[in-house]
Amino acid sequence: MTFDNLKINTQTRLMPMIGYPMAQSSASLVYDCLLERFDINRIMWPVEIKKGELASFMQAARTLQIDVFALTMPHKADIIPLLDEVEQSSRLFNSVNIVKTVDGKTVGAGMDGKGCVGALREAGTKLEGANVMLLGTGSISGVVGYELYRSGIGSLTLLNRTLSNAEEVARRLRDNTGLAVEARESTPAELDRAARDADVFIQCSPLGMFGFGADHPYLGFMEKLPAHAVVMEAIVNPPMTTVVKKARQLGLKTIGGVAMTMAQIAEIFEFCFDVHPDAEDLEVCTRVWCNHFGITPDQL
Amino acid sequence: MTFDNLKINTQTRLMPMIGYPMAQSSASLVYDCLLERFDINRIMWPVEIKKGELASFMQAARTLQIDVFALTMPHKADIIPLLDEVEQSSRLFNSVNIVKTVDGKTVGAGMDGKGCVGALREAGTKLEGANVMLLGTGSISGVVGYELYRSGIGSLTLLNRTLSNAEEVARRLRDNTGLAVEARESTPAELDRAARDADVFIQCSPLGMFGFGADHPYLGFMEKLPAHAVVMEAIVNPPMTTVVKKARQLGLKTIGGVAMTMAQIAEIFEFCFDVHPDAEDLEVCTRVWCNHFGITPDQL
Repeated sequence: MTFDNLKINTQTRLMPMIGYPMAQSSASLVYDCLLERFDINRIMWPVEIKKGELASFMQAARTLQIDVFALTMPHKADIIPLLDEVEQSSRLFNSVNIVKTVDGKTVGAGMDGKGCVGALREAGTKLEGANVMLLGTGSISGVVGYELYRSGIGSLTLLNRTLSNAEEVARRLRDNTGLAVEARESTPAELDRAARDADVFIQCSPLGMFGFGADHPYLGFMEKLPAHAVVMEAIVNPPMTTVVKKARQLGLKTIGGVAMTMAQIAEIFEFCFDVHPDAEDLEVCTRVWCNHFGITPDQL
Repeated sequence: MTFDNLKINTQTRLMPMIGYPMAQSSASLVYDCLLERFDINRIMWPVEIKKGELASFMQAARTLQIDVFALTMPHKADIIPLLDEVEQSSRLFNSVNIVKTVDGKTVGAGMDGKGCVGALREAGTKLEGANVMLLGTGSISGVVGYELYRSGIGSLTLLNRTLSNAEEVARRLRDNTGLAVEARESTPAELDRAARDADVFIQCSPLGMFGFGADHPYLGFMEKLPAHAVVMEAIVNPPMTTVVKKARQLGLKTIGGVAMTMAQIAEIFEFCFDVHPDAEDLEVCTRVWCNHFGITPDQL
């Protein structure tokens, strides 16, 4: 993989992406592609920072005049007490994945929710009044739920293997939005029940993710989804999960994890650099990303 | 300036160059050119680190797994107590400009002396038994003197505006080598006297350097140099100093600061990466560097 026109000179600045592990990270491809397209003289540099090393990293960033960095697991919540300012919903749901420095102050925001809703809208999904079913209440479900609320959905059903996690996210969403939110254990019966009324199904669990070691034990509920339902997958690697495959077999409209990542990175570029990647920019970056995985964009 | 084939991917490592100020730094051009030629997946990244910030930088380097970095003023001496191991002559003359990590230990070396002697040899200069005249006993004169001694020169005359500095460097060279070293104040009379017997004249002072604000008050001594004398300039910017111009007018053989820098960077690549840049590699990099300054290699 090369970026033929990337400029490196004495004015080049870094934009680290920190997390652990990072060996499988492919998002930097997309960042570098966009940095190049917008002629921003920066390099996205993935670096492994383990849990507990975040304060050291913040110190290193100050020393090396690093004014923008992206972060992924396991730091999305841990970063919050180390920042000067945090965007409100990101603080509420403990999910920050981008930090910029403004007038010497560190400002963090989480773009997972905006990315999810951005990709849904980009694909023409009607969200106003929609019944949304969301499986997996890990780190991003809260911000996703919050942005769905802001988009005017009618109701949200959260399903999770551990019910108490789903209940906690539901409570926080209800308290802060007034949205109709239910929490359910992700048993086959509850999945079936939620699917019947769902206009949108969002897969947010790590099941089926590369390296996670387990896939969905039951996907029969997808057969209960209405024919007009839209299926969204948050997982990026593999590019086509069992959920996406099943949805396609059922003739349902699908939105893959890559589209969600692209929409999220577009939000990050607006936040950090005040530039606005359009559909063509994201198409070009998607092609770069697909080339890396040896697939074609129509396979997404 | 672009490096069209520079690869940036998730395995890319940094090679910072630290110093202050760095806005005028052009050496990174040469490093990146060589990294590319040897297919070493690293980026030379110039970053400003001020005096007193070196310990913070070392901490940042550990956090970010930076295993190789170059350094320039004002850090060449300050770095020494912060390293696990320092090459002997570099420690003796307080001049380290490259640090690598080996088995978790930081190892520093100074390549100014080796670069100087390397460029002299590359140009075919006979050093065995030569009388060498060196003007300016700042940070690099000691290591240059030491490498000249190792090359078998006959005598060394150090000239400096502040005599005590020259005497200190001379004393340390005599104590550690047994070489015949004299220290003189750089008055016109002393310069004239030294020039008459010099086979090699090395200009190591900052006089005439871009941004230094002063040039040589007296260069008449160069007319006293023997016709076979070789004139070497340590200054890189401007590419052609008043000393080089004068030497050319006098028909003397000249070796510019760029050649010295190239030879030094070749030494650094051997030290860090165990690769051996040859004349062609350095020619290509010299062209890149010249393009940056809008000059042609024959103007050096």
